[in-house]
Amino acid sequence: MAQKMNKTKIAEKRQEVINTLKTFGAKIYDQLEQGVFPTINMPSRSTDNINYDPKTRQYILGEKVVSRSARNIRHVKPFTQLAWAAMFSNELTTQRKTSTLRDVYYSAQAYEMTFTDQQESNNIITDLETITGFSREDFSIFPEERSAIFGDLNIEYTVPGYEGKTLNLTSHPDGVLIGPALTSAAFGSTTADKVIAIEKGALFTRFIEEKVYSKHKALLISCGGQAPRQTRSFIRRLHDELNLPVYILTDGDPWGMHIAQVIISGSTNAAHLRELNTPDAVWSGVWATDIVNYKLPTDPLDEVDIKRLYELQRDPRYQTDPVWQREIKMFLKIKRKAEQEAFSRYGLTYIVDEYLPTKLSGKK
Amino acid sequence: MAQKMNKTKIAEKRQEVINTLKTFGAKIYDQLEQGVFPTINMPSRSTDNINYDPKTRQYILGEKVVSRSARNIRHVKPFTQLAWAAMFSNELTTQRKTSTLRDVYYSAQAYEMTFTDQQESNNIITDLETITGFSREDFSIFPEERSAIFGDLNIEYTVPGYEGKTLNLTSHPDGVLIGPALTSAAFGSTTADKVIAIEKGALFTRFIEEKVYSKHKALLISCGGQAPRQTRSFIRRLHDELNLPVYILTDGDPWGMHIAQVIISGSTNAAHLRELNTPDAVWSGVWATDIVNYKLPTDPLDEVDIKRLYELQRDPRYQTDPVWQREIKMFLKIKRKAEQEAFSRYGLTYIVDEYLPTKLSGKK
Repeated sequence: MAQKMNKTKIAEKRQEVINTLKTFGAKIYDQLEQGVFPTINMPSRSTDNINYDPKTRQYILGEKVVSRSARNIRHVKPFTQLAWAAMFSNELTTQRKTSTLRDVYYSAQAYEMTFTDQQESNNIITDLETITGFSREDFSIFPEERSAIFGDLNIEYTVPGYEGKTLNLTSHPDGVLIGPALTSAAFGSTTADKVIAIEKGALFTRFIEEKVYSKHKALLISCGGQAPRQTRSFIRRLHDELNLPVYILTDGDPWGMHIAQVIISGSTNAAHLRELNTPDAVWSGVWATDIVNYKLPTDPLDEVDIKRLYELQRDPRYQTDPVWQREIKMFLKIKRKAEQEAFSRYGLTYIVDEYLPTKLSGKK
Repeated sequence: MAQKMNKTKIAEKRQEVINTLKTFGAKIYDQLEQGVFPTINMPSRSTDNINYDPKTRQYILGEKVVSRSARNIRHVKPFTQLAWAAMFSNELTTQRKTSTLRDVYYSAQAYEMTFTDQQESNNIITDLETITGFSREDFSIFPEERSAIFGDLNIEYTVPGYEGKTLNLTSHPDGVLIGPALTSAAFGSTTADKVIAIEKGALFTRFIEEKVYSKHKALLISCGGQAPRQTRSFIRRLHDELNLPVYILTDGDPWGMHIAQVIISGSTNAAHLRELNTPDAVWSGVWATDIVNYKLPTDPLDEVDIKRLYELQRDPRYQTDPVWQREIKMFLKIKRKAEQEAFSRYGLTYIVDEYLPTKLSGKK
């Protein structure tokens, strides 16, 4: 169990982010002062440098390094863009303003810094992540997507204007949005002894209505499909700081399975970052074997589904637990898929009354 | 100004929904009792029966009526499905459980009621809306999508387990989700004197950070693209019950313009319903003329954008205010579009400090 981040720790982390950016800038200045063309080195993110690491149980970058030198005429533009991105990130973080990738692209124009398109500015932000080891959310650059949480956990805000204010996450029965204010909050007391992350908002609402949070002492999370990065690192914090096991419930198809996998093992796109994933989290269903055992209403797997299953079968993240391979095989055998809502064929509360307790008991 | 819905009014409305369903059921029973094949009449929703009504300033259904009779062998299935949908809606509403269209489709199987696909069950729910005049949200059938609100308004919940509990909508600085619990809440006191509905979550967050809610005494709404129906009727309630003017800010393109239009004039799909739209709401930008006046960074209109603009030009909803036609013409002239975030080219706070005050002053 990691130490709970109190307000001081959270402020310290923010300071650490700012210091890292300053160090990055200072290095460039120092080189200029020494009369040499400044150079930046960072791990390569090319496919051949992305490896699955069984120890950290996620993708990480290998030894290959790329350089960007102001001496090289082809590097001058991305070099300058990167320096600007660091400066802008420093502004956002010190001024406690949040932004988005889209916003960064337009903001550059306020500084007469040109990007050909948003893809170019997105890449530069990823470079900055790679160099500093912090994620863009740490620099106050957030995605638009928001997921939600509900359950008995007291949090204390650290955002400007809300310092010291607290909220219990059962305050709003539609769920509490997981945005910049919540992800930067300190965790207080909780009676929960587990986290249940749910792919779909409809089931999240059902779980609230059926009081799963109190019956099963759970913090419920609505992922809203693929969980945004900030939600994935928030789940990691819940696991680490509160010492809570994490269960994931998705649709019974390759896409749902992979939503769970990315929460557990992270994505290749984030191989340059740590702590966005929760290796101890468990995919609890809907399994292919559940489709069979519970005789769920199904749709046929289409070609894209089947292609995806074969891809996943070879993916190293799917070698970590025999459940993955068993379920992939079963999907390929039955050639059917089922949604979480399919349990409603047994009545609205069946999934809560019957399916969930079996799954939480850890039966494989 | 409409009367504010207090807890009693909200409970009364729910009772009215249940009574309407009961009356519907009783009519079928009565016909059976009289020994005749039961028949249901409802307004036709075919395109030729949808007309723009200048008085209510929305699309409404005309005089054409369709019948469904249990005597007609082709009608027996939809007739039965409709009776089942009414029964299921009654169950949801009396038991205070929420559901989704997807869930309804699967739940039917618990009653051995078959629908070929979800499109079929969706249509039956729309039939039920047409017959009763209530929207599916009144029957506790909610969309997955949630938008959010932030600002000084006290609300009082009426959902089970939360009766009498209150929340101030500034409690969570990431915004408060607009879901079943919030839309069924009673409004208490507010210091706000306007509503600002915003297409994009990023700008919504910017507005919270820049304290637009207190500087401009505004309730801020994040539509999340096209506002879900429950959000549109929630905006209507804010306008009617709290007597607040509504301003809408969207991207500067035909799609943003139409997001505003649907909040104002409703959609053809909901021509069978009332009070999902707010005819007095105002589209405040981003206008094509703003793109010119503020020299915003733009993208070229593509073919689909241009086709859409010609469609909107002919749409009766766009004849109601000369601003619409003027802006369509300007879009077609400059052949460019701009996003809300484009204002960041003048710095992150420009949109709040300069653009918004001009827009709220009502300058055309």
